[in-house]
Amino acid sequence: MPLSKKLVAEFFGTFWLVLGGCGSAVLAAAFPDVGIGLLGVSLAFGLTVLTMAFAIGHISGCHLNPAVSVGLWMGGRFPASELLPYIGAQVIGGIAGAGILYVIASGQADFTTAAGFASNGFGEHSPGGYSLTAALVCEIVMTFMFLMVILGSTDKRAPAGLAPIAIGLCLTLIHLISIPVTNTSVNPARSTGVAVFVGDWATAQLWLFWVAPIVGAAIAGVVYNWLGKED
Amino acid sequence: MPLSKKLVAEFFGTFWLVLGGCGSAVLAAAFPDVGIGLLGVSLAFGLTVLTMAFAIGHISGCHLNPAVSVGLWMGGRFPASELLPYIGAQVIGGIAGAGILYVIASGQADFTTAAGFASNGFGEHSPGGYSLTAALVCEIVMTFMFLMVILGSTDKRAPAGLAPIAIGLCLTLIHLISIPVTNTSVNPARSTGVAVFVGDWATAQLWLFWVAPIVGAAIAGVVYNWLGKED
Amino acid sequence: MPLSKKLVAEFFGTFWLVLGGCGSAVLAAAFPDVGIGLLGVSLAFGLTVLTMAFAIGHISGCHLNPAVSVGLWMGGRFPASELLPYIGAQVIGGIAGAGILYVIASGQADFTTAAGFASNGFGEHSPGGYSLTAALVCEIVMTFMFLMVILGSTDKRAPAGLAPIAIGLCLTLIHLISIPVTNTSVNPARSTGVAVFVGDWATAQLWLFWVAPIVGAAIAGVVYNWLGKED
Amino acid sequence: MPLSKKLVAEFFGTFWLVLGGCGSAVLAAAFPDVGIGLLGVSLAFGLTVLTMAFAIGHISGCHLNPAVSVGLWMGGRFPASELLPYIGAQVIGGIAGAGILYVIASGQADFTTAAGFASNGFGEHSPGGYSLTAALVCEIVMTFMFLMVILGSTDKRAPAGLAPIAIGLCLTLIHLISIPVTNTSVNPARSTGVAVFVGDWATAQLWLFWVAPIVGAAIAGVVYNWLGKED
Repeated sequence: MPLSKKLVAEFFGTFWLVLGGCGSAVLAAAFPDVGIGLLGVSLAFGLTVLTMAFAIGHISGCHLNPAVSVGLWMGGRFPASELLPYIGAQVIGGIAGAGILYVIASGQADFTTAAGFASNGFGEHSPGGYSLTAALVCEIVMTFMFLMVILGSTDKRAPAGLAPIAIGLCLTLIHLISIPVTNTSVNPARSTGVAVFVGDWATAQLWLFWVAPIVGAAIAGVVYNWLGKED
Repeated sequence: MPLSKKLVAEFFGTFWLVLGGCGSAVLAAAFPDVGIGLLGVSLAFGLTVLTMAFAIGHISGCHLNPAVSVGLWMGGRFPASELLPYIGAQVIGGIAGAGILYVIASGQADFTTAAGFASNGFGEHSPGGYSLTAALVCEIVMTFMFLMVILGSTDKRAPAGLAPIAIGLCLTLIHLISIPVTNTSVNPARSTGVAVFVGDWATAQLWLFWVAPIVGAAIAGVVYNWLGKED
Repeated sequence: MPLSKKLVAEFFGTFWLVLGGCGSAVLAAAFPDVGIGLLGVSLAFGLTVLTMAFAIGHISGCHLNPAVSVGLWMGGRFPASELLPYIGAQVIGGIAGAGILYVIASGQADFTTAAGFASNGFGEHSPGGYSLTAALVCEIVMTFMFLMVILGSTDKRAPAGLAPIAIGLCLTLIHLISIPVTNTSVNPARSTGVAVFVGDWATAQLWLFWVAPIVGAAIAGVVYNWLGKED
Repeated sequence: MPLSKKLVAEFFGTFWLVLGGCGSAVLAAAFPDVGIGLLGVSLAFGLTVLTMAFAIGHISGCHLNPAVSVGLWMGGRFPASELLPYIGAQVIGGIAGAGILYVIASGQADFTTAAGFASNGFGEHSPGGYSLTAALVCEIVMTFMFLMVILGSTDKRAPAGLAPIAIGLCLTLIHLISIPVTNTSVNPARSTGVAVFVGDWATAQLWLFWVAPIVGAAIAGVVYNWLGKED
């Protein structure tokens, strides 16, 4: 596959991750009486990755996430030369997904991004009021485990073809745990996509959702490299 | 397989999609205290497709949806000669599914189709009051991504045999996002099936749920045709 | 496999179906504030079948349901000579599952079978007050589609090894639709298992949950026999 | 694989089981209005096992649970020589997972372990007030069936590669049934992990969550050994 098609695939995949995951949160989570709640949002985020991994895994590998690309690179599975182009396509895709979500959501009279637009945050912008330290630890550990599952389930000794299920449902699991803490990022492109429409505190706190996921992912790359190697 | 058996399979499949998806919405979504909510309805719609794709995929390909048939045709995966017969079988199956649902639902004393009978709508008939523009954009984009997942996960380089899971859960995901906007169609046969029992605004707004899904699907056929081709 | 081991497998499987499915309903559905609701019960029923189909499918075929055994027999997949022994093992397993559930549930001070103990019913004993006619139609059609999915997904042209997922999640789907109508049976052994602990109306209405599932399953056996055959 | 890497894998796996399962319960189950409830917690526990089974199954077999190791040993699938090291790694991993959860959870001002910290209990410490007898029966039977599914789905005649799905979703099912009874253990390492942070009644009642799961698992090892053997 030429790099250009890989980047288009990453664009559409990250577009879908933000439109689907953040979209379910903005449009459906708190719908009166029958809303899908945090459980539905968790499922939606995971299913964006599960569906795209089956749809474009054979084109780009379906990273959809700068931290995933970094973790795979640290784990020796992804060439450094494609790292920046992938991250660029992911961020642009994330912003485009948030843009389409903005168009749809603003078709309702009382919509406002002041409600957060599914942005990630800590301290007073954490959904449950969790501290900066809790947010940092949470995002690092969650992304670390996400990459352990990605690296392990795509190991050639793991069952063939089923990694999209493991990886997608791992993202669901991560959201089931950590939405109250940071609204769950583990993905700088997802955080950036919606933050640019909210500005203000969302962009001010964005640094954490680049640093923590990438740190967690990089550590996992190193750890799995050792753990998964047959001696 | 002779065309006649393919059409019977499409009939039963679309019958199940409407009976199961719209049935869960009409019968169980708002059941007092323990109702399944929009999350349960989303799961039900997806599972109708997942189950039938395993059951009749080897007979008809399990489209169950005129937009899917059009998208597969535009993507070069389905012969033009079978397009109209498939669409006919799907619409008749959808109406039959809605008919059986009507028989069951009217076994409860306070049932009335005035509650909507799971019809799709926009503006004042959107569950969340979303505008015509939001509905159009939403249905086009959702069906576009649905077809990207269908075309990608049935690509011969994708993991064999797992497309039913990817496609079924993609329909679940689409509902998790968009029930509040249009009650989610992405399927003209599903919209038509219930609209004929409601009439009035449901049939008046039905045009959008034919146009938007087919436009989105057709674009995806063209895009994936380019994106998925190895150079 | 000798018949005796098949029957023990069917016993444990149906034991698990009733303990898990009805158990989730009795113990957890209406737990204050965080109860699993009808969605959780639907998932639980499906997962009893999904898990056992992976665990004992290679031993007994994992029917766990007299209607399934009849449908497979009508579809030419199961020998008449094993029909009655299978049904016997299923009914005994169902009663044993309900018995263990009774022991656990009665460990709470305010437990009473007068709350229904997850029995199936119609008319005034339908959860949503649905009529006898609605219950009959619903149980026949649901079991018909259940067997279509079972027969189709275990067809040798369907993806190998994935039928447990299709069949288990089909039972989840059936519950998402029809718990409000009859509390969902589609399985005479499940209905009998709990009814013997409730007696009264539950045993008086039990006939419907033998007749309707078996009629629906038998029709599916005939229909799929024709539909699935390559000419 | 050297034993040391297997133990590291078991450490990370049980770390994830406790952080993810108990974490979803502590952080997200009762979040105001949109909390994930017992259904979300059940899904989270199951997904920790599903994801790790795909990620480290090829390294350590992914037991994550002393009762599972004992049951596999009784079933002739696991060497006695590795039993104690595995159990040690699992308990340490469980405590580490609870420790990280403590760090995150205490980043919220009103956090206290007095709310239970997802500990297992019976009698007045059972979520639904279930008796000691109900708790014993429940934990024995649930672990027995868990091991039946583990042993059956990893039998060489079962569909290859899909056991992680069967086993993970079996743990989800077990939680859907039994959280109200004991908060669901079926895993001594999970119970121990959180109990050491709560002390008091949680450590006083811990014996049951070692005895009952191990008894249930050991019986399953013997039963499946007979049931699954072709004569």
